[in-house]
Amino acid sequence: MIALGQIKDIARPTPSKIVLLVIDGLGGLPHPKTGMTELETAKTPNLDRLAKEGICGIMDPVSPGIIPGSAPGHLALFGYDPLRFVVGRGVLEALGIDFELKERDVAARGNFCTVDGRGLITDRRAGRISSQRCTELCGLLSGLNIKNTRLFVSPVKEHRFVVVFRGEGLSSELSDSDPQKEGLAPKSVIALSPEAARAASIANEFIAKAKAALADQYPTNMVLLRGFAHYPDFPKMSEVFGLKPAAIASYPMYRGLAKVVGMEPLATGATIEEEFFALVDHYNSYDYFFLHVKEADIAGEDGDFDRKVRVIEEVDRALPRLIALDPDVIIVTADHSTPAVLKGHSWHPVPFLLRSQWCRPDGVEEFSERSCSLGALGRFPATDVMPLALANALKLGKFGA
Amino acid sequence: MIALGQIKDIARPTPSKIVLLVIDGLGGLPHPKTGMTELETAKTPNLDRLAKEGICGIMDPVSPGIIPGSAPGHLALFGYDPLRFVVGRGVLEALGIDFELKERDVAARGNFCTVDGRGLITDRRAGRISSQRCTELCGLLSGLNIKNTRLFVSPVKEHRFVVVFRGEGLSSELSDSDPQKEGLAPKSVIALSPEAARAASIANEFIAKAKAALADQYPTNMVLLRGFAHYPDFPKMSEVFGLKPAAIASYPMYRGLAKVVGMEPLATGATIEEEFFALVDHYNSYDYFFLHVKEADIAGEDGDFDRKVRVIEEVDRALPRLIALDPDVIIVTADHSTPAVLKGHSWHPVPFLLRSQWCRPDGVEEFSERSCSLGALGRFPATDVMPLALANALKLGKFGA
Repeated sequence: MIALGQIKDIARPTPSKIVLLVIDGLGGLPHPKTGMTELETAKTPNLDRLAKEGICGIMDPVSPGIIPGSAPGHLALFGYDPLRFVVGRGVLEALGIDFELKERDVAARGNFCTVDGRGLITDRRAGRISSQRCTELCGLLSGLNIKNTRLFVSPVKEHRFVVVFRGEGLSSELSDSDPQKEGLAPKSVIALSPEAARAASIANEFIAKAKAALADQYPTNMVLLRGFAHYPDFPKMSEVFGLKPAAIASYPMYRGLAKVVGMEPLATGATIEEEFFALVDHYNSYDYFFLHVKEADIAGEDGDFDRKVRVIEEVDRALPRLIALDPDVIIVTADHSTPAVLKGHSWHPVPFLLRSQWCRPDGVEEFSERSCSLGALGRFPATDVMPLALANALKLGKFGA
Repeated sequence: MIALGQIKDIARPTPSKIVLLVIDGLGGLPHPKTGMTELETAKTPNLDRLAKEGICGIMDPVSPGIIPGSAPGHLALFGYDPLRFVVGRGVLEALGIDFELKERDVAARGNFCTVDGRGLITDRRAGRISSQRCTELCGLLSGLNIKNTRLFVSPVKEHRFVVVFRGEGLSSELSDSDPQKEGLAPKSVIALSPEAARAASIANEFIAKAKAALADQYPTNMVLLRGFAHYPDFPKMSEVFGLKPAAIASYPMYRGLAKVVGMEPLATGATIEEEFFALVDHYNSYDYFFLHVKEADIAGEDGDFDRKVRVIEEVDRALPRLIALDPDVIIVTADHSTPAVLKGHSWHPVPFLLRSQWCRPDGVEEFSERSCSLGALGRFPATDVMPLALANALKLGKFGA
C-alpha cells in the first residue's frame, strides 16, 4: 500500500465532501433456512440504488482470514494500516468509557478476580459481578495512594475496569500481571525496557495495595492488569489527508477511535435516525464524515438474524436524508462481518459501495455480499478506501511526474 | 509483490518473445450521453479477438485511488515498484527532450518567471512565453560561467527548461527554489545533506547569475528551479529478468524511461502505423518489446472523447501486423486512465489483456473496462505484469524447492 507520507504529498484540500457510513458488523452468512444473508434478506431500496449508481466490491478489513477487532477494522477504513497502527487494550477500554486520556497517561485493562488462600486464581472474572458492584470497588481503589502518581480507577462493565496512572515519564512497556489462566498466581508486572522500571514499580505498588484493600471483599479479592498502553500518537487525518473530519457515533469507543486520528466527535442522539440528523445539522462545517451505526453488530453478536435484518432496513429508511445532501462521495460498508449464525465478529470480507460522479459504475444492481463480489472494485483491502474516497472527491494530485 | 532479487534467481533467457503494447491513457469513463467509455465506444475487432483468446483483468498502475504520473505508470509495467523506484522531476524533463544525462549529472526543472521590483514572484510562468523565446533565453543562460561546473540549459516548451550541472561529486539532495506560489520571493536552494553543500552553492550561483543576465528581459526576469535529481541507478531488465529488451516510442520521455531500465530505444517514425512497422523491422533482434502509443492520452487530456475513440480504432487497425508476428506473449494495457470527461490522468484502473498459448482463457469476449473487470485475472497491481509476462513466455523457473 501507499505510505501515509506519500499520500500526504499529493492530498489537497477542496470543498468536496465525503461521507463514510459504517454499518458495524454488516457482513453476514446465509440463514440455514433461506440461504440468504441478513443483507440479502433485508429490503434495501436506497442501498440498492446507491450500488447501482456506484461501484462495488468486497473488502477485507484487516487481511483475508483475519477476524478484526473494532479498532483495526475502523483504523483501516480511516486509511491507517491496522497491522502497523495498533491501539493498546488499555487505551481501547478507556476510549470505551469516554475517559479523557492525557498524552503521557498509562492505561491498563483491569479485571476483578478471585484468589484462594495460596494466592492462586480460582476465577479470573470473580463470578462476573454486577456493574454496580464494580463501580463500588473502583471507588474503593481510587482512594489508594501511589507515590508521585495520580491514580484513576473507572468501572467498565461487570468485572472489568480501567486503571490509569498519570505521572511524569511513565513508560507503558510493561508485561501483563494477568496470566490468562486459572490455577496460577497473578504475575509481577515486568519492565520490558530499562525506561519502564519506574512504571513497573508503580503498577506493582498499585496491585499490592489493591490486594490489601480487597482482602475482605471475597470473591473480588484481587485484580489482574493487562494491555498497558499510552494514548497513540498517530498522524492526524487533517495533516495526512488535508481533511476536516467529523465523527457521528453514539457509542463512546467509536468516538474515541475517531478522535485518535483527529476527527471531531459531533453531538448526536442515540438512535440511527438521530445520527443521520446530526449529519444534516453539521454538514456545512466539515468535508469528511464518519457515520457509525452500531446496532447491526449487536444484533449479530446476539445471534438475532431477524433483528439484524430490521436494523439494516432502518438504516436504509434513514438514507434519503444522507442522499439528499448529495455528498461528492458516499461510501457504505462495514468494519467487519458479524454473522448472526456465528454470534460474533468474523473474518468474512464485507460488502462495499462507493458512489460519486466519477466512479465508473459497474452494473452491480443490488447491495449484498454476493453482488458486491462481482463489482469492478474486486476484492480489496480496507486501506484502499481512503485513497479511493479522496480520488473520487478529486482531492488527490498526480503521483510522480 | 516478489522482489527483483527473487525474480532474478528464477528468470532464464529463452528465445520466446513478449510484446507489451501500452496505449497511453487508454482507460476511460462513460460518455454522459451513451454511458459507454471511449474503449467501449470504439470498434475494436482485433483487440476483442485478443481478449477472447487471452485472459483479462483490471489493473491498478500504482495503487488504488492513486493518479499515476507517466514515470510510475510505466515503471510498474516494466516490473519496478513505482512507490520505491522514483525518477526525479529534473531527470524526467531531461528525458523528455532526449538530453543525454551522464551518471553524475544533476538535473532540475526550470521555469522562466516574472518578479517585481521587490523580487516577489508575480507570474510563475512569465505569461507562458513562446517556445521560440524560451530557446533564445536558454541560449543566453548557457553562456554563464559557473566555477568547476559544466552548465547545460535546454528549452522544453513555453516557459519550461532543463538545467544540468555536470561536475565532480555533486549531490542532488537539494531543496527547490520554486516556492510554488506567487507573491513570494524565490527561495535559496538548501543542501538537504552535508554532502550537498557544494551543489547547493553552485545552484544558488547559477540562480544569481541568471537573475543578473535576465535583469532587462522583463517579463522573463527570473528563474525558478525544482526537482533536482540524478539519473536513476536502477537495475537493468537484462540483469533482473534476463531479457534483451527494446522500446518503440515516438515520444522522447517514454524512450527515456525505457532506457532507465535498460531497454534499447529503436528508430521509429512518429505515427502509430510506423511504430508497428518498427516492431516488424526489429522483431528478430530482441525478445521483449515495449510499444508505446501516446495519442490516446493526448486526446483524453484534450477532453476529446471522439478523437480518443478514433485513436483506439487506429491502434486496432494496426494490430494485425503485431498478431501476424505471433509473439509468445502479447499484452495490451495502459499506464493509467485518461478519461476525456476528466481531461487528465485519473486513478481508475485500466483494462488488461494477455494472450499466450498458456494463459488459461477466461471467457471474456471483448476488450473494455467493464468486461475486463470480470476477467479471471481479477483486479491486480501493475507490478504483477512482468512476472505474468515472463511466466507465460516460459521464462521463469520454479520458486523454492
